[in-house]
Amino acid sequence: MEHLFDKLKCYGSSDIYPYHMPGHKRQISGKLPQEFCKMDITEIESFDNLHQPEGILRELQNKAASLCGAEESFYLVNGSTGGILSAVSAAVPVGGHILMARNCHKSVYHAAYLRKLKISYLYPNVLEEFDISEAVTPEQVRFALEREADIDAVLVVSPTYEGRIADIRGIAQAVHEKGIPLIVDEAHGAHLGLSSEVHENSCRAGADIVIQSTHKTLPALTQTALLHVNGNRVNRDLLRRFLHIYQTSSPSYLLMASIDNALYFAETNGKTAFAEFRQQYGEMLGRLAQCRHLRFPEPNDEKQDMGKLVISVKNADITGKQLYDILLKKYHLQTEMATESYVLAMFTVGDSHEGYDRMTKALLEIDRSLGVSALSETDEEGNDFGTAEKKNAVEALPLSEAWDAKTEEILLHDAAGRYAGEFVNLYPPGIPVLVPGEKVTEELSRRMFRWLQQGLTVQGIEIREGKHLIRVLKNENGK
Amino acid sequence: MEHLFDKLKCYGSSDIYPYHMPGHKRQISGKLPQEFCKMDITEIESFDNLHQPEGILRELQNKAASLCGAEESFYLVNGSTGGILSAVSAAVPVGGHILMARNCHKSVYHAAYLRKLKISYLYPNVLEEFDISEAVTPEQVRFALEREADIDAVLVVSPTYEGRIADIRGIAQAVHEKGIPLIVDEAHGAHLGLSSEVHENSCRAGADIVIQSTHKTLPALTQTALLHVNGNRVNRDLLRRFLHIYQTSSPSYLLMASIDNALYFAETNGKTAFAEFRQQYGEMLGRLAQCRHLRFPEPNDEKQDMGKLVISVKNADITGKQLYDILLKKYHLQTEMATESYVLAMFTVGDSHEGYDRMTKALLEIDRSLGVSALSETDEEGNDFGTAEKKNAVEALPLSEAWDAKTEEILLHDAAGRYAGEFVNLYPPGIPVLVPGEKVTEELSRRMFRWLQQGLTVQGIEIREGKHLIRVLKNENGK
Repeated sequence: MEHLFDKLKCYGSSDIYPYHMPGHKRQISGKLPQEFCKMDITEIESFDNLHQPEGILRELQNKAASLCGAEESFYLVNGSTGGILSAVSAAVPVGGHILMARNCHKSVYHAAYLRKLKISYLYPNVLEEFDISEAVTPEQVRFALEREADIDAVLVVSPTYEGRIADIRGIAQAVHEKGIPLIVDEAHGAHLGLSSEVHENSCRAGADIVIQSTHKTLPALTQTALLHVNGNRVNRDLLRRFLHIYQTSSPSYLLMASIDNALYFAETNGKTAFAEFRQQYGEMLGRLAQCRHLRFPEPNDEKQDMGKLVISVKNADITGKQLYDILLKKYHLQTEMATESYVLAMFTVGDSHEGYDRMTKALLEIDRSLGVSALSETDEEGNDFGTAEKKNAVEALPLSEAWDAKTEEILLHDAAGRYAGEFVNLYPPGIPVLVPGEKVTEELSRRMFRWLQQGLTVQGIEIREGKHLIRVLKNENGK
Repeated sequence: MEHLFDKLKCYGSSDIYPYHMPGHKRQISGKLPQEFCKMDITEIESFDNLHQPEGILRELQNKAASLCGAEESFYLVNGSTGGILSAVSAAVPVGGHILMARNCHKSVYHAAYLRKLKISYLYPNVLEEFDISEAVTPEQVRFALEREADIDAVLVVSPTYEGRIADIRGIAQAVHEKGIPLIVDEAHGAHLGLSSEVHENSCRAGADIVIQSTHKTLPALTQTALLHVNGNRVNRDLLRRFLHIYQTSSPSYLLMASIDNALYFAETNGKTAFAEFRQQYGEMLGRLAQCRHLRFPEPNDEKQDMGKLVISVKNADITGKQLYDILLKKYHLQTEMATESYVLAMFTVGDSHEGYDRMTKALLEIDRSLGVSALSETDEEGNDFGTAEKKNAVEALPLSEAWDAKTEEILLHDAAGRYAGEFVNLYPPGIPVLVPGEKVTEELSRRMFRWLQQGLTVQGIEIREGKHLIRVLKNENGK
């Protein structure tokens, strides 16, 4: 089978002169490594066209489909974002009704806004011990589908940002009983199903559309992803149309070659690489069991994806952000993110022995310096991005109206009881804490203050002249 | 000033270990060059966030703005496509009315579809001598704005795919007299305004929003672009919202570094590089004046951008596709595209002396082998992607309805008189020959047949079992 990276390398060293884009002409790379330009081409002879694939890109997409258990797969160059926008647009008509997990990535909310959708939420439970959102369950999905008769599609995220895996088989069954499609945001699970060492993927478990970020957990470049489809509950022509609309007409061959690279790696080295990954990860957790204050979710739990190391500080006299800073500044270990009660570190098949060792030694050393946490506000309130307590939340207006309604900027201090006029995200991961139209509760406003004080990034709160400002609906809208 | 490529290189060789995405961990590049992974990071400490820039990305965007004459500029990683979708979405409300050039890129049509816009077209004149569409004129814009009172925004393309430059100063004046914004698709003109050797850019000429593909004419990677804004005729908050929506939440730092690279190149080497470019390009055209049959637009014409070499075969006994094939197969010269009456070759600051020399020698040699064209059908009908003869075209339905209406697939042979149900593009450049809802004229169906026979790529015409099929509106819609 021909691979894109080989073909690009070969082409880059041929004597064919480029009288076409890109403008660097494979010659002037400037300050960039020469290799970048050597392999960077446009849709020329024999390199096919992503938006109408008939040659090598078609073959590669077919290959991806067969590896991942899909009838049809698409290479994505605008990240999982482009895939999510396309999937929702194809599956739900303008003004339709979507049932979605409240812990979805912002792109799902964006799709709902663009399509003016009615939204019903699935509120995930919270794994209290670690203050993280669980994946949604088949029971929750079934219950919601019984309550609302006009749902057009269901969208859930699995694994979650923290690696919690949903029972997709159960959810798919519940959704398909209603004759509607299930879309799974599997952005954090591109590695699933590629080896017996990891969990089954959502595609094989029965989802209709699955979106995976290849760059997150596989050796592909940032901004790359895959979209897989099975069955005919979603109109494929419409899906292709939206993939065409939401993605550039000049897709990067470097990005596409890197998707090929990731799947080639999984196919040829996957067995060994995932086995080593599991072994090293397990050994690290074994050593970390000595910690007296830092805690970690059980690694062998079927519901927890290997690779996401949640380092809980709930039982220690330190905040997540403080631990994050110590790891970075003292040990030069850059983790993925911090909340007030944990730090998230990611491991993949790309990690070296050094990576496991440095993290283990650092955490053991830090743990020895820690004391027991006094019972703090955090312990009482949890830190699940505010998804749990919204179960009874009142919405002034649906997202599609609220985001276009009249708003004003007020002090965060005065916001309790008002309705959000803008998204508020704790970043990463970009899961909205507040969606336009949702009520700002007393508890949530206190929590946002605390996050800001702890130095966490709260997108949607402006800080001007020392004041914290939030955009809320004008009172005429926000009853 | 700090540059992203330097900062990435430096970071890649530091001892900071990555416990975050991307999954290659800067270590396993697989079959890709090691440099790809070394510089490929995500939004980590001190590398800012494209969707809420406060550090280096903000500085770089400010730098881009000052270089290009904008108040505010945005780096784009989903190509000009993402910029066009965002600009139209921010400038025209859902259900609003856009006045656009008929020779726009498909992304403009896609934006109009997403926003359910009413479309009025500006039909460019045809430069008869070369069968290429001209840019639209201030007079055409003024006339259209007098006729239609409720236009929300105007969008034109300049330079066109073939390098025709519009009088943006005149157009901006006409548009601004109506108090509405002018958006210019300057995808083919990222180099404009960067040196006295090239034409002024649309930003300085008064456009409100300008979108430039940095990869097309500058040393940036494919899929990169810039969006520039001036004034307040378009709501900036709304513009930022849509840029956030239509672009991945995991933007590639390689792509962003390459935009920085392109502008850095222009700033530091631009003066010399553009002067050499002009000189070499001019010398080539001087030598090509010896051709007896092949013809080229006048290079010093103010209306023609340097760099797009239109090689007209109108006066020769050869088709554009035949010339394209000879250049590729015999001389190993890959041009940008062919139509039936010309071949388009692109030159940029990236071209070497070898590039000019090989093209010149090949064309002189080919020209000597050619005879005079017999007066052909082509001479009568022109080859301007069908924009000119549509002036009096009847639309059955507007695009936003037609693309969602019931359609059927019929033989292209039987299509005359029916209304298109799908886009038909001669690719490249991706300017629609037919937009859903437009009438398939006798002339156009003959022309499409001819293109197919000549081996040109006609997207939207399926070939199955030797039959040419086109999707048209069912008769209930297509009156």
